Amino acid sequence: MIKIGILGSTGYAGSELVRLLSSHPYAEIVFLDSRSYENKSYTDIYPHLESKLDKKCSSIDLMDDSHFKNLDLLFCALPHGLSQIAVKQGLKNKVKVIDLSADFRISDVASYEHWYQVEHLAKEEVKLAVYGLCEINREKIKTATLVANPGCYPTSILLALYPLLKEGVIKAQGIIADSKSGISGAGRNLSDANLFSQCNENIRAYSLCKHRHIPEIEEQLSLYSDTTLTLQFTPHLIPMNRGILSTIYADMNKNLSCSEVYDLYITYYSDEYFVRLLSGGKLPQTKAVSGSNYCDIGFDIDKRTGKIIIVSAIDNLIKGASGQAVQNMNLMFGLDEHIGINQLPMWP
Amino acid sequence: MIKIGILGSTGYAGSELVRLLSSHPYAEIVFLDSRSYENKSYTDIYPHLESKLDKKCSSIDLMDDSHFKNLDLLFCALPHGLSQIAVKQGLKNKVKVIDLSADFRISDVASYEHWYQVEHLAKEEVKLAVYGLCEINREKIKTATLVANPGCYPTSILLALYPLLKEGVIKAQGIIADSKSGISGAGRNLSDANLFSQCNENIRAYSLCKHRHIPEIEEQLSLYSDTTLTLQFTPHLIPMNRGILSTIYADMNKNLSCSEVYDLYITYYSDEYFVRLLSGGKLPQTKAVSGSNYCDIGFDIDKRTGKIIIVSAIDNLIKGASGQAVQNMNLMFGLDEHIGINQLPMWP
Amino acid sequence: MIKIGILGSTGYAGSELVRLLSSHPYAEIVFLDSRSYENKSYTDIYPHLESKLDKKCSSIDLMDDSHFKNLDLLFCALPHGLSQIAVKQGLKNKVKVIDLSADFRISDVASYEHWYQVEHLAKEEVKLAVYGLCEINREKIKTATLVANPGCYPTSILLALYPLLKEGVIKAQGIIADSKSGISGAGRNLSDANLFSQCNENIRAYSLCKHRHIPEIEEQLSLYSDTTLTLQFTPHLIPMNRGILSTIYADMNKNLSCSEVYDLYITYYSDEYFVRLLSGGKLPQTKAVSGSNYCDIGFDIDKRTGKIIIVSAIDNLIKGASGQAVQNMNLMFGLDEHIGINQLPMWP
Amino acid sequence: MIKIGILGSTGYAGSELVRLLSSHPYAEIVFLDSRSYENKSYTDIYPHLESKLDKKCSSIDLMDDSHFKNLDLLFCALPHGLSQIAVKQGLKNKVKVIDLSADFRISDVASYEHWYQVEHLAKEEVKLAVYGLCEINREKIKTATLVANPGCYPTSILLALYPLLKEGVIKAQGIIADSKSGISGAGRNLSDANLFSQCNENIRAYSLCKHRHIPEIEEQLSLYSDTTLTLQFTPHLIPMNRGILSTIYADMNKNLSCSEVYDLYITYYSDEYFVRLLSGGKLPQTKAVSGSNYCDIGFDIDKRTGKIIIVSAIDNLIKGASGQAVQNMNLMFGLDEHIGINQLPMWP
Repeated sequence: MIKIGILGSTGYAGSELVRLLSSHPYAEIVFLDSRSYENKSYTDIYPHLESKLDKKCSSIDLMDDSHFKNLDLLFCALPHGLSQIAVKQGLKNKVKVIDLSADFRISDVASYEHWYQVEHLAKEEVKLAVYGLCEINREKIKTATLVANPGCYPTSILLALYPLLKEGVIKAQGIIADSKSGISGAGRNLSDANLFSQCNENIRAYSLCKHRHIPEIEEQLSLYSDTTLTLQFTPHLIPMNRGILSTIYADMNKNLSCSEVYDLYITYYSDEYFVRLLSGGKLPQTKAVSGSNYCDIGFDIDKRTGKIIIVSAIDNLIKGASGQAVQNMNLMFGLDEHIGINQLPMWP
Repeated sequence: MIKIGILGSTGYAGSELVRLLSSHPYAEIVFLDSRSYENKSYTDIYPHLESKLDKKCSSIDLMDDSHFKNLDLLFCALPHGLSQIAVKQGLKNKVKVIDLSADFRISDVASYEHWYQVEHLAKEEVKLAVYGLCEINREKIKTATLVANPGCYPTSILLALYPLLKEGVIKAQGIIADSKSGISGAGRNLSDANLFSQCNENIRAYSLCKHRHIPEIEEQLSLYSDTTLTLQFTPHLIPMNRGILSTIYADMNKNLSCSEVYDLYITYYSDEYFVRLLSGGKLPQTKAVSGSNYCDIGFDIDKRTGKIIIVSAIDNLIKGASGQAVQNMNLMFGLDEHIGINQLPMWP
Repeated sequence: MIKIGILGSTGYAGSELVRLLSSHPYAEIVFLDSRSYENKSYTDIYPHLESKLDKKCSSIDLMDDSHFKNLDLLFCALPHGLSQIAVKQGLKNKVKVIDLSADFRISDVASYEHWYQVEHLAKEEVKLAVYGLCEINREKIKTATLVANPGCYPTSILLALYPLLKEGVIKAQGIIADSKSGISGAGRNLSDANLFSQCNENIRAYSLCKHRHIPEIEEQLSLYSDTTLTLQFTPHLIPMNRGILSTIYADMNKNLSCSEVYDLYITYYSDEYFVRLLSGGKLPQTKAVSGSNYCDIGFDIDKRTGKIIIVSAIDNLIKGASGQAVQNMNLMFGLDEHIGINQLPMWP
Repeated sequence: MIKIGILGSTGYAGSELVRLLSSHPYAEIVFLDSRSYENKSYTDIYPHLESKLDKKCSSIDLMDDSHFKNLDLLFCALPHGLSQIAVKQGLKNKVKVIDLSADFRISDVASYEHWYQVEHLAKEEVKLAVYGLCEINREKIKTATLVANPGCYPTSILLALYPLLKEGVIKAQGIIADSKSGISGAGRNLSDANLFSQCNENIRAYSLCKHRHIPEIEEQLSLYSDTTLTLQFTPHLIPMNRGILSTIYADMNKNLSCSEVYDLYITYYSDEYFVRLLSGGKLPQTKAVSGSNYCDIGFDIDKRTGKIIIVSAIDNLIKGASGQAVQNMNLMFGLDEHIGINQLPMWP
């Protein structure tokens, strides 16, 4: 059994992690950290786990090494700053770490500090971090001690663009990603913007030109394309619980047909359990991935404009967060990659 | 492996059956019957099963015995009338049958014919049918050849009232069940009443005093209470996909405290995997059971009025339909009762 | 022009009042009080009023009489306690007051203090208050200096039962009201229970047997029926913004047909602009009243159980709060009753 | 009074027209045409208009000139083909016509026939048609006999881009419009894609590269920019009833600051009652326009990419359909432009 501690276990990413690990045959949860709900029974906060999980939340003192003693793995779902210290402490205590925050996703620390407007407190550890997009960095993840779990928007955009940029099918410059997310992406924070009556029957764009996932996406896309590229990214909030749909626009570099591009995607993804390519003009929808770790990808080429439009869909809390975190765990511990995360999507 | 045919596989109950059976270790789907989608690939209709299920729909001629040749089990999710013939044919061909329609749930055929306004075409088979509420009829189900899978509203109401009526804690007469259902309960039928813009931001009651689940519920409750009782039942449609919440009002027969009633429930349900009793005044909510086969039950006693109010919650497509059908299958084939249906609920 | 001050203008009841008064031909808003948003532009908080309203919020010191100097009318939408002081101050300064809180709705101060668990700070003013259910107390409202605007649930229940109790058609004891409300009823408060992801795809009952609207409803119903009655009331939250649907169960006292009961309702309501009786078995739905000041009422009698089931629907923020408050204002100032609140409902 | 006939009155655009005209002081509805609901009372289909409208639907024989005898204005909300004949007949009978279909919006008949894959049956009348985007074609509309009411997506996109293209601020080529619409845009048609359970908790793109609004938008944008431009347009369906949000990407032609672009917008729109420019980086949201005829516009310039991102929001059934149709009527009949359509948006 893998002995696991979860820091920040009562947000939505944390609770989804708890749900998935509760049914994972090789996982044993040692502690559920929570500042806000210390000493409260976990099922008082998340009643769906009633009868399955009988544990109280504890507030872990990160400076007390004893907490890390018997752990094999630390999941860290804390806000930035806190996350940096936690990861440092975990690694110091020889515990493998999967960090769900953004703190270790960007290898260019200066860029991180510019976009997040804070000083990074664990610069050395950044160098150890592997960017945990499993389909792309699988081999590195297997031997990593620190995995930076990708952001939800980045996951949906990177998987869609990886083969196209690798093969030079599209131009690296001028890419636009217009993403739409369910409200759970904003977490379980008490914020006016998260209230039901503010979100329901409403759609809005936010963080125009300045969302913090931009440097993360750009760094990865630049790696794929061997250039330094600049991305236009616009996130939107739409009235549903789960799901991200990204609509991505790029200029074709070569004059390929849809079936040629499909074949190219197949070369990259035919063996990938969690990536499903839609053929014949079919397009992804979030309902088709909801509750699962799948990423669905479809596309069309517009002969009139010379652009390709790629659409990708994920469940933001699973492939976009905790499902991918468990996928990373499976890789790091030599397990079959889809153990514990092969639930089928729910419809409707 | 249990060889399975599914009649009416493309409604929501059918598709949920297909989803659950696709991951069931002992199930093998032989055919997916559908009149409307004959020869269409199943994943064109239900894209969430993409990559997991590669099967076409076929339109089964019920009169052709050869379809039943190699089957162990027939799930029947057809409209009434059709269902009666299908069950007849299945049983004639020595295939066990689980029927999800209402046709074999009511043992009093005259009552059935009165409420459904049709002649019953398989009166003899009605006598063979076991009412498939697993927690209550478990032993009979194990040896049944025909199981009538309970309705969604009845499941939520019967489990809530069973211990109370059995023990004479409440008066049998004057019970009121006010139920609220997500829209998927109405199926995937093209009806004006099912359109998004008609349902969203709306709630309405329907079939006041005449919903067809009334005789089904009354027959069972009468068995529990050893009287012939009459129920007031009002269903409502609310703007969500899944879930039924039933709020049930009954007059107390004895002057018991909440904790005494709780203990009584415990006597009946403490060993039931799929029934979760909420203690300490906690109340069920549909989100806490969504995606699972659980039935959550909570209650309170109003000293001012002398009434007990019981609230129960299920996922209408799982415990209220296909999950319970698989639970019945497990019982009929001697399997562990929760195989294939022990997914945890999803939150949010 | 009626010069108006609004205390607590940035909750949903407050903002709906602002919206309605902005288009009211005889209303002039003097101040918009808000503690939380002092000095903020009102349209920063409620952008739908952009270009129509150019005013900042101010935080009114209730003890400073000068604020009430040039006012004709004070709308008070504050939490209890605060509301009591505000009303006191308004009346002292000869300003008419419409209070949207519960503080002056219950004439039995002891009952108020029991249910609300606070001491009442304006007991004398309670005696002056008229319960502002316009259809029933119209004449008293016209000359009132203080109107206690009814609660949302009470409005939907009282209008449905008034003619039946007055005429002795139903038994006064044993009435059950099962109500379902959109989330805006909980206001714009930062509470975990109001978050989108907690409410969407969910339904739950709350405040079982102890909701604070119970004494308010009971007091009024007791007046109608000339007895002291006890009510069973269960509120539920459902995933929509606006609307309340109440399903009410009562025992028939006399053996009347549906058309006889319909005629009786007509005697009471045929001249009421804002009450719409549905005939021929049609039932109300919240969408049909959304955005309007209407209360729709339908019903059916169950011969099997001897009960009548009445269903009523209102927009909780309009007829259930601010629309009715404006209706009260119109009456108090001798205006045509439906000025400023005769907008038609929106569908879909 | 303007005597009005409405063809196709029972779709959502039709019903919204009926609602708005019911409260319009100068409108008198002569007939409500409907094939599907002939002889049915209109309020049986749209119960929100109960007590306000007492009229039955009739099925108008377009070939019978007598129907047009006493009309001043014909609103036509029919599917294409039928619409062409209806408009022909109306004009022949000297009745002014506002057509809500796409049939007369595109002056290039060959383009129309290419995108709609039908022969146009009223080519001569196309020449008479004025494109009814009131803010831009106001003067022509005043004297028009036939107005082609703009599509919902086009309205949201054209108003956002008009000043920028007119002033040459952005490049005409390479514009991308990514639009998100509520489900009511798909009408009240019985289609699987419109079912609640298919749409709720789901988002999908559709008609990639081939939506029929493309030629309509391109023709207008080409007029503004004095070039022939090609547009990338992707519509999405999101789970809400009303509203369209368009996120539009264009390359800046000149190096302008946000405040310079804002000033430019102001030059065009400061006198426009129904266009609201958001300043200071504020962005539109559909809730802020819901129930109103407003179009809200906000934007930001990305220095990193050299692009401007413009976001616009409308209520698709009002400014995107029936509200704009009434605005056109007001102009054609010399009335104050906002009579009957100046309702404030509803929040929440």
